[in-house]
Amino acid sequence: MAAKIASDQSTGTFVELPGETPELKARAAARIVAFEKLDVIDAPSLPSEGRAFNRAQATIAYPLEAVGTDLSALTTIALGGVWSIKGFSGLRIVGLELPSEFDGVYPGPQFGIDGSRRLTGVYNRPIIGTIIKPALGLTPHETADVVADLVASGVDFIKDDEKLMSPPYSSLEARVKAIMPIIRDEEQRTGKKVMYAFGISDVDPDEMVRKHDMVVREGGNAAVININSIGMGAFLFLRRRSSLVLHAHRNGWDLLTRHPGLGFDFSVYQQLWRLLGVDQFQINGISAKYWEPDDSFVQSFHDLQKPIFGDGDRPLPVVCSGQWGGQAPETYRRTGQTIDHLYLCGGGVVSHPGGPSAGVRAVRAAWDAAVGGIDLHEYAKSHPELAQALAKFGSKTVSEGK
Amino acid sequence: MAAKIASDQSTGTFVELPGETPELKARAAARIVAFEKLDVIDAPSLPSEGRAFNRAQATIAYPLEAVGTDLSALTTIALGGVWSIKGFSGLRIVGLELPSEFDGVYPGPQFGIDGSRRLTGVYNRPIIGTIIKPALGLTPHETADVVADLVASGVDFIKDDEKLMSPPYSSLEARVKAIMPIIRDEEQRTGKKVMYAFGISDVDPDEMVRKHDMVVREGGNAAVININSIGMGAFLFLRRRSSLVLHAHRNGWDLLTRHPGLGFDFSVYQQLWRLLGVDQFQINGISAKYWEPDDSFVQSFHDLQKPIFGDGDRPLPVVCSGQWGGQAPETYRRTGQTIDHLYLCGGGVVSHPGGPSAGVRAVRAAWDAAVGGIDLHEYAKSHPELAQALAKFGSKTVSEGK
Repeated sequence: MAAKIASDQSTGTFVELPGETPELKARAAARIVAFEKLDVIDAPSLPSEGRAFNRAQATIAYPLEAVGTDLSALTTIALGGVWSIKGFSGLRIVGLELPSEFDGVYPGPQFGIDGSRRLTGVYNRPIIGTIIKPALGLTPHETADVVADLVASGVDFIKDDEKLMSPPYSSLEARVKAIMPIIRDEEQRTGKKVMYAFGISDVDPDEMVRKHDMVVREGGNAAVININSIGMGAFLFLRRRSSLVLHAHRNGWDLLTRHPGLGFDFSVYQQLWRLLGVDQFQINGISAKYWEPDDSFVQSFHDLQKPIFGDGDRPLPVVCSGQWGGQAPETYRRTGQTIDHLYLCGGGVVSHPGGPSAGVRAVRAAWDAAVGGIDLHEYAKSHPELAQALAKFGSKTVSEGK
Repeated sequence: MAAKIASDQSTGTFVELPGETPELKARAAARIVAFEKLDVIDAPSLPSEGRAFNRAQATIAYPLEAVGTDLSALTTIALGGVWSIKGFSGLRIVGLELPSEFDGVYPGPQFGIDGSRRLTGVYNRPIIGTIIKPALGLTPHETADVVADLVASGVDFIKDDEKLMSPPYSSLEARVKAIMPIIRDEEQRTGKKVMYAFGISDVDPDEMVRKHDMVVREGGNAAVININSIGMGAFLFLRRRSSLVLHAHRNGWDLLTRHPGLGFDFSVYQQLWRLLGVDQFQINGISAKYWEPDDSFVQSFHDLQKPIFGDGDRPLPVVCSGQWGGQAPETYRRTGQTIDHLYLCGGGVVSHPGGPSAGVRAVRAAWDAAVGGIDLHEYAKSHPELAQALAKFGSKTVSEGK
């Protein structure tokens, strides 16, 4: 089956071909460079006849000469077509190693970790963010009222929910014009400019760039992009024209990875989007509200930390989904004791019993405790907002730091 | 679980929200409009605890007011996010019904069935196509030699294999310049212009449009686009600037549909791409070389035949994968006795024992027989190329017309 992948995804077809010469194969054929049998399993990942299913891990090398450095060629040849091949009871791509020829072909992150810190002015702790909730349904002026509260709360970063783009009841333009004066006023008054990521995704790249330009004109500095919904090409088109921090929401990613015997590992997927220029990458968190297990999140965090070709291609990891601060100790411990991430709390901030200001203080206290190695309940004795958060959210997601 | 989809994919999050008022929900909340229990199954589609798994079919209505007509919003809200929700043992989207407000928002096919017939001059039978094989590895001049044979064979349509885009050994520009003179010369001589679809996919939309323009300048009239590799936005960007027939290869689609308990039905997926402007849509065929069962191909064919908002949004179905003519009777019978498709044979034409000319004659004979209701073996008695094809390929894919 590994040989079939190598053949189908390069020179071959369903019959012998007159022109498939040894010289041509040497130039263009994929090769199996490693092969390891894995244990036999009794449940197939795709409907298949039988009671025992052989598995193996194969490493297949595709000639650079045959693929080139175009990412749509790479995904067509080495990633996309493999699931069409008959006879597999499962197939997952667990790694991707790009040759150095890809280095410099794509723009990569424009801001990444350093740029996100510079623009928010936050250096000695995680950047704390929140999300406008309810996700959908607020008018631009209702949203602006929420933003006013959030800006006053001391939060570093605010974003539109990824589902909010430019629906009839809340056009992006109306939202930008209602929200940016609040951000600018706060900056005038306090010197702190909250990073607001507007949902500028649009299936039409021309329109998306117009949206981008409008956010820039009004003084915004970030955008949420639903990367899978617009696709690689549209994202690259935007990146080449962008002066905003591009915050990636990987909507639909779950379909590509949730079944352990199908799809991709995040280590594969994230390389493509980092080369294309994602600055901030949402990857869930400890005790997420979604299906993703903690181990998978932790692995994703490490994937983002690892340079592809250099430190400059590392985006800022965005720890999110069901976060409220209680997961800070375990997050800190399991991600290599780093504070280089955006810690994004939606309901965890806005539903804090004391309101969003108290919510932000609770989250910052939780991170201070995590970094200081202090038990959250102990720290809560002198930090009442953290105590309130523990009382309200602690039963949902108790997460141990040790 | 249906209620959870409706809540998570619209106004809700993991805790109650202060602003989630009844008025807001009325404006933005998704609603379950139908719900039907299905049979309980014993094997989950996603790893899950337990021995019996409940299933149901739910119809969920998303307010137009909350989604708008942007396809990236639609895919984010109604299609993409659902697989992130915890607790499912499987989840498949089996239908999508768009309101009339989407009509006219997107360009749709520029050529479709009528334009493909007009440009090829083929009216009374399926358009017969073939693919350059070997898929990868031929230099531009070797490709041109193959094209010269194919053009002389009487075939109506030729395409680059979807894996061939613009690799170092065969840049698109060199290929276009080597191939188009052959097409143009044949047109001068015989009046028949073969439609050649060049692989112009590129992850960079600007570059893809440059490739498009170069094909147009050299007199080409079609392009193969690897739609999933470039994404919806890049495809729309191209379509808005295109004067070529856009032939869609859905590389990677299998990952989104192969597991029957996960992903999408083609009926959902194809609507998006038709609105965006696919002219010719590859959908496999009877006895395909790939995993897809015949019933699934037949359903896909019917999906493409059904107008979304009008006949103009119907692309030309491309019947392909392991085709050589033997499947003509069954294809004809099961697709509603239509000849409105592109019948695409790669190895089935180029590996015919008598060469590609004989291959094309065999395929045309097979279709004449299918439409005339004559048994292929009977017809082969007076059509030697069909007899040769039956002898060579018949054991691989014997397909009954009755």
